Amino acid sequence: MANPFAGKDILTLKGVSRADLEFLFDSALSMETILNKHTRSTLLSDKLLGLAFFQVSTRTRMSFESAMQRLGGGVLGFADPKTTRAGDYYQESLHDVVKMMESYADFLVIRHPKDGAPAEAADAVDIPVINAGDGYNEHPTQAMLDAYTILREKGTLDGLQIAIVGDMAMRVMHSLPLALANFSSQVYFVSPKEQAQSESWRAEYQKVGLKFHELAGLDPILRELDVIYLMGTKTPSYSQGRVDAGAAHEVTPTPYIVDRAKLARGKKDLIVLHPLPRADELPVELDATDAARYFVQARYGVALRMALLAAMAGRG
Amino acid sequence: MANPFAGKDILTLKGVSRADLEFLFDSALSMETILNKHTRSTLLSDKLLGLAFFQVSTRTRMSFESAMQRLGGGVLGFADPKTTRAGDYYQESLHDVVKMMESYADFLVIRHPKDGAPAEAADAVDIPVINAGDGYNEHPTQAMLDAYTILREKGTLDGLQIAIVGDMAMRVMHSLPLALANFSSQVYFVSPKEQAQSESWRAEYQKVGLKFHELAGLDPILRELDVIYLMGTKTPSYSQGRVDAGAAHEVTPTPYIVDRAKLARGKKDLIVLHPLPRADELPVELDATDAARYFVQARYGVALRMALLAAMAGRG
Amino acid sequence: MANPFAGKDILTLKGVSRADLEFLFDSALSMETILNKHTRSTLLSDKLLGLAFFQVSTRTRMSFESAMQRLGGGVLGFADPKTTRAGDYYQESLHDVVKMMESYADFLVIRHPKDGAPAEAADAVDIPVINAGDGYNEHPTQAMLDAYTILREKGTLDGLQIAIVGDMAMRVMHSLPLALANFSSQVYFVSPKEQAQSESWRAEYQKVGLKFHELAGLDPILRELDVIYLMGTKTPSYSQGRVDAGAAHEVTPTPYIVDRAKLARGKKDLIVLHPLPRADELPVELDATDAARYFVQARYGVALRMALLAAMAGRG
Repeated sequence: MANPFAGKDILTLKGVSRADLEFLFDSALSMETILNKHTRSTLLSDKLLGLAFFQVSTRTRMSFESAMQRLGGGVLGFADPKTTRAGDYYQESLHDVVKMMESYADFLVIRHPKDGAPAEAADAVDIPVINAGDGYNEHPTQAMLDAYTILREKGTLDGLQIAIVGDMAMRVMHSLPLALANFSSQVYFVSPKEQAQSESWRAEYQKVGLKFHELAGLDPILRELDVIYLMGTKTPSYSQGRVDAGAAHEVTPTPYIVDRAKLARGKKDLIVLHPLPRADELPVELDATDAARYFVQARYGVALRMALLAAMAGRG
Repeated sequence: MANPFAGKDILTLKGVSRADLEFLFDSALSMETILNKHTRSTLLSDKLLGLAFFQVSTRTRMSFESAMQRLGGGVLGFADPKTTRAGDYYQESLHDVVKMMESYADFLVIRHPKDGAPAEAADAVDIPVINAGDGYNEHPTQAMLDAYTILREKGTLDGLQIAIVGDMAMRVMHSLPLALANFSSQVYFVSPKEQAQSESWRAEYQKVGLKFHELAGLDPILRELDVIYLMGTKTPSYSQGRVDAGAAHEVTPTPYIVDRAKLARGKKDLIVLHPLPRADELPVELDATDAARYFVQARYGVALRMALLAAMAGRG
Repeated sequence: MANPFAGKDILTLKGVSRADLEFLFDSALSMETILNKHTRSTLLSDKLLGLAFFQVSTRTRMSFESAMQRLGGGVLGFADPKTTRAGDYYQESLHDVVKMMESYADFLVIRHPKDGAPAEAADAVDIPVINAGDGYNEHPTQAMLDAYTILREKGTLDGLQIAIVGDMAMRVMHSLPLALANFSSQVYFVSPKEQAQSESWRAEYQKVGLKFHELAGLDPILRELDVIYLMGTKTPSYSQGRVDAGAAHEVTPTPYIVDRAKLARGKKDLIVLHPLPRADELPVELDATDAARYFVQARYGVALRMALLAAMAGRG
């Protein structure tokens, strides 16, 4: 099929079809062979990727750096606005920062504490922009890699029972359902009532035909589940770009923790994903179980982002 | 002509001739074709560029990173001394830092809050050093790219009426006049009296034959101008390497602001440059006008720095 | 001989033999020709090096970045945990950070304030790990390059009289004696009594057959020495990862300072090494003497690390 991502921005999963995702997943599978061989290709050796992280990151930033360099490309930019003039007394606008970076790179990856900032950036520049997480809105490449992880670990994205657990205000909680809406799996949003999906996101999921239910705990569905996608219920505030230690470490209520005891009550082949970093909702005791697939998620993430960058450059 | 930059330091624009600049500008023009094609060359693929930013930067650092990587070279170093031992309790000396970096790279780009620091560094090491801004002294590559921008946007650097507006203590305000002194354009320094060019810089400009006048506002010359080079009048202190927010956002006095109303009183083909970041002297309403050339400046900056790095490596 | 480092972790100098070191030194010598020509090879152009600096560094980090890029490889990671999620409210565990980075790179360089952290990391991941300094424990690649510097500057590592001066709690003070134990040189530990080698390290040196004496000052042995390896006696605390300015700048007691007067009382061909950064134990007046070899140390460091990375990749 034709490459649906050539020259396009990746700002949201709204409007991304099953065929689009399958195009990416096919390419990601072949990218995995590069990773398996611990080698690099030269597919994008003539390109530069610009990183504009107005909010710190570990996985997403390094994952893009790795993906781009695995394809032979170069990387530049900033991992922390405090190391730029954007972080100093000028409080330089997003617009001015990206208008400048447009001259420095061939595509741009942007993380920003404000909802919609990457879309604003994409309006301002002529090069393709990737949203690497904007406020409480979306994190589309995370959802793409999460869906790819489910496909690779379960063999399908159809007909599964998938629980998404944690504070539904988090941006990953919005992009993943949009991705899953392209498949026939059943989705359960599991959260405290005050952390449920918003009216507007619920309407969005209905529009795209997502099959979903909302629950206050895992118990009623635990025995049916194929996949638990876990996040915390102690959402930190993004408003400062960085948050005080401590808040995330308060005790997560029991219904939103997945420990060995809970795992033992699920299916034998139940798997647990988590975008990390984790707080107490995902105890370390789970790492040694066969259900734990959150570290291999990082690896699939590199393959998926290699596929995406290649596709955006018209070389998918 | 022979390459005048091979193996040389770029510390100042003093002594840089018209022929030197024209050599660079010719090379930059051919570098633009690499940028237009969104590709990379391998001209410097065997070289490493070291960045020592003792003072944070957005444009200058990323511009050099982009230029070097567009030519296939590698980049290493630091964007913020706080991420190095130079920023910790040892308060390691500039001398010791650059003596070490001499072993790590083939040329060095240095930004430092102290006047003359790059020259000190150049004395200490055997590899070529580029001054990327030193205190209130100079910023030679910025002036080179500013002059190149005027050449590309006006077709010439001769016979123009050029206003340079803002606090004349800023380092860019010193390097640009030295570059322009090689051409026949008339320069107007426009600033509050207490922010006028110093006696010693005035003497410098007279020595190199710059045609200049000093004014307290744009009004008397506005209708004659071909180029306005704008900076703020609220100069932050460099002494700490980073400055408290707020200071830059005080209200700039009207004579040093360029808004649409003022623009309407100038020539039809008047252009406005600004090194950015901006405060209120350059309102956003100007961005949509044909006069606004400050974003394309960033693009010319990459081409110019590519030309400079290639020339310094003896491959101009 | 067979490459003893292929696919191995470099966590300690315990168990590293004379033949192992000589293998590295031979390779480093040929790497120096790459540095002398100011060029780059493509030996590791298919590899990525991950940097995880939980404690800031200047020399070690940039030295690895330079070494990897001189061999054509790519580099990614973090220079400061504050620019990652590891530094924010999640206080992400070392385990989780390296499990993720395992997917991003082909080997990992780790500096950490906690003793044994790189060994923990090596247990967690399948890719080779290099200890770039762990708490008060070891800094093996520093010791390798220090030994290589002595070899290159004195022509041998056997039969020398070598003083190691400063606080013996520092990690470099542990790795260097282990390296030297493979050779017939005599080692003198010179420190205030309360900063002497610990019982357990002393036992370690005896086990590996190091010939060593302990002294409270340089005076009794100064005239016999071939090499002084100097560090400070004002060890900062590593507990915070970064330390308050000031502590390092207290006055070092006279017996542990090497100035020109002291140098004049030594052999004509006595050389002084220092891992840098320095406090007042190494006055700047020494830089101009023929004894000062601490800047060329940085250069040997790049060659040695190039040799090590190549060997670990099975291409030594």
